[in-house]
Amino acid sequence: MPELRKDILTGRWVIISTERSKRPDDFRPAPGAEPRPESLSFCPFCPGNESKTPPEIMAVRQSGTEQNQPGWQIRVVPNKFPALQPGPPPPKKTNGIFQWMEGVGVHEVIIETPEHHQEMSELPLSHLAEVLKIYRFRIREIEEQYHHQYVQVFKNKGKEAGASLSHPHSQIIATPIVPKRIKEEIYGAERLYRSHFRECAFCRLLREEISSGQRLVYKNDRFVVLTPFASRFPFETVIIPRGHSAFYRDISDEDCMALAEALRQSLLRLKIQLSDPAFNLVLHHAPNPQVSDKAWPGIENYYHWHLEVMPILTKVAGFELGTGFYINPVPPEVAAEFLRNTNISQR
Amino acid sequence: MPELRKDILTGRWVIISTERSKRPDDFRPAPGAEPRPESLSFCPFCPGNESKTPPEIMAVRQSGTEQNQPGWQIRVVPNKFPALQPGPPPPKKTNGIFQWMEGVGVHEVIIETPEHHQEMSELPLSHLAEVLKIYRFRIREIEEQYHHQYVQVFKNKGKEAGASLSHPHSQIIATPIVPKRIKEEIYGAERLYRSHFRECAFCRLLREEISSGQRLVYKNDRFVVLTPFASRFPFETVIIPRGHSAFYRDISDEDCMALAEALRQSLLRLKIQLSDPAFNLVLHHAPNPQVSDKAWPGIENYYHWHLEVMPILTKVAGFELGTGFYINPVPPEVAAEFLRNTNISQR
Repeated sequence: MPELRKDILTGRWVIISTERSKRPDDFRPAPGAEPRPESLSFCPFCPGNESKTPPEIMAVRQSGTEQNQPGWQIRVVPNKFPALQPGPPPPKKTNGIFQWMEGVGVHEVIIETPEHHQEMSELPLSHLAEVLKIYRFRIREIEEQYHHQYVQVFKNKGKEAGASLSHPHSQIIATPIVPKRIKEEIYGAERLYRSHFRECAFCRLLREEISSGQRLVYKNDRFVVLTPFASRFPFETVIIPRGHSAFYRDISDEDCMALAEALRQSLLRLKIQLSDPAFNLVLHHAPNPQVSDKAWPGIENYYHWHLEVMPILTKVAGFELGTGFYINPVPPEVAAEFLRNTNISQR
Repeated sequence: MPELRKDILTGRWVIISTERSKRPDDFRPAPGAEPRPESLSFCPFCPGNESKTPPEIMAVRQSGTEQNQPGWQIRVVPNKFPALQPGPPPPKKTNGIFQWMEGVGVHEVIIETPEHHQEMSELPLSHLAEVLKIYRFRIREIEEQYHHQYVQVFKNKGKEAGASLSHPHSQIIATPIVPKRIKEEIYGAERLYRSHFRECAFCRLLREEISSGQRLVYKNDRFVVLTPFASRFPFETVIIPRGHSAFYRDISDEDCMALAEALRQSLLRLKIQLSDPAFNLVLHHAPNPQVSDKAWPGIENYYHWHLEVMPILTKVAGFELGTGFYINPVPPEVAAEFLRNTNISQR
């Protein structure tokens, strides 16, 4: 069983993942070893190889085709090497001055397309909207169990972004505690709501950003793509719904279509302008309502879900690790202008 | 002038670094471009090339040799592409809902040796102790100006760790605010001191770790090397002085020798056991005493300086960026045992 352990000073939790565990020797590259060219190697996510993943949780598939057989368009499976494992609500334990709990949770993979080389930015809009609806569906299902306090949806594209397989896929990890970074956003939003703005800080931000236009990359009726004022990474963007909502689980079908368009615009512009960089995509939304209602009453008024897209163009180094302080060599206003001016028609 | 910008939700500051600024095109690799083999290219840190760095701030050099000429053993120079720049104390400014200030600070490079290929772990102990004394000296000098609130000493070794030059060097960045991660440690230590332990949390931790031995890598009379209970990264180690002290600036010459031995042990074990990985080294100590005295009275009782060494063996991916939650595939007890059992005599 993996373990969750708490840093007593900072309150940061880590997952000590025994299932994904590597022997120390695995970190020593064999002399002269070359990375395996992944295109030549076997892909467990391609059609025909369904038996190489754990049995599917759900799939969007042609009628008449069978579970765990080809014929699917989108397929959700448990992660074969899960960071957390199913189980009953884990109690917090102590061991001397240390705190830990069993690593209970959920780790799923959403295979976005049967086509090995069809990237997320190349999916037809209606297909991408289906992927976004599956995010919603899985969040709702996983949140049925209250001890899955936070459902993190994310995507790693490219080796530099931490992807071990290149076939397009997203992942979901549900944790038995609300992660520190999410808590920080919630507390910040609550403070701004109560003491300063008397409205949602994200709604206020959207008004200011749309009116200034300096950091605007793209907008449609329902979504806005921005480079954040205090961007940590060059060409980082955030996709924010224009209508106020704390819970991604409440997104409408129409908004899934509009989000697909905004996400596609965001990814395509990165791809065209920056030679197809590796990137991470993460969803920030309110924790499981069963938890939020108790821990943060009123969260529906002041928190606002959003997607963050972070291309990997620079290395995080000692200064960042030491201080939590990031050095970004590209002003977000310059990045926004560059992404705004993409010649999208070349696709 | 670079800018410091604050994320209004989380309170995280970033440096938008115009001096190191890259044009967006710099992020597009030219088709077919290979990384320049650095060993064949020019090194501005090698003896004879002193004119290629800004004029030296100080150096340990043979008597009779001249400033900015060969003959030095250790050389401190301003960073040629500084993340922050000298200037008067910067006031906080607002722009609509945003907060920022001018990027005033210090950015120095400590060239640890004239030998291009002599890594930190290979320096003679007395030489390494001199480097550690120079950390102390620069911290004291920089802290003379109260608006340098925090002096971050760090080292990036290897490309994967963010080093752009391979000649062994450390860096110092002094910031006009105390970084979030340092504040978190201070507040955590204060809370544990006042509400739980009634002693320094680090001193308590040392007692428990030395007595259990599970995560112990090395110890001498004055320092202990541990793998932290909630390690974020595989084979991460922390070097903690056994005597209580919040301020690195107060380290004695004798302790610099003992620290050199502990640091060397830590780096050598990583190098031998993990095929010379890239790593980041960061010093955590109390902020400028002129700031600490006001903001954290009593900090000298509850904070305890330490060095963190983080080898780069895995990629930080979307889940980590999204949640601040790390997945570590190697239990710290396994890592400690593996590092403890290094055959040091093979060097």
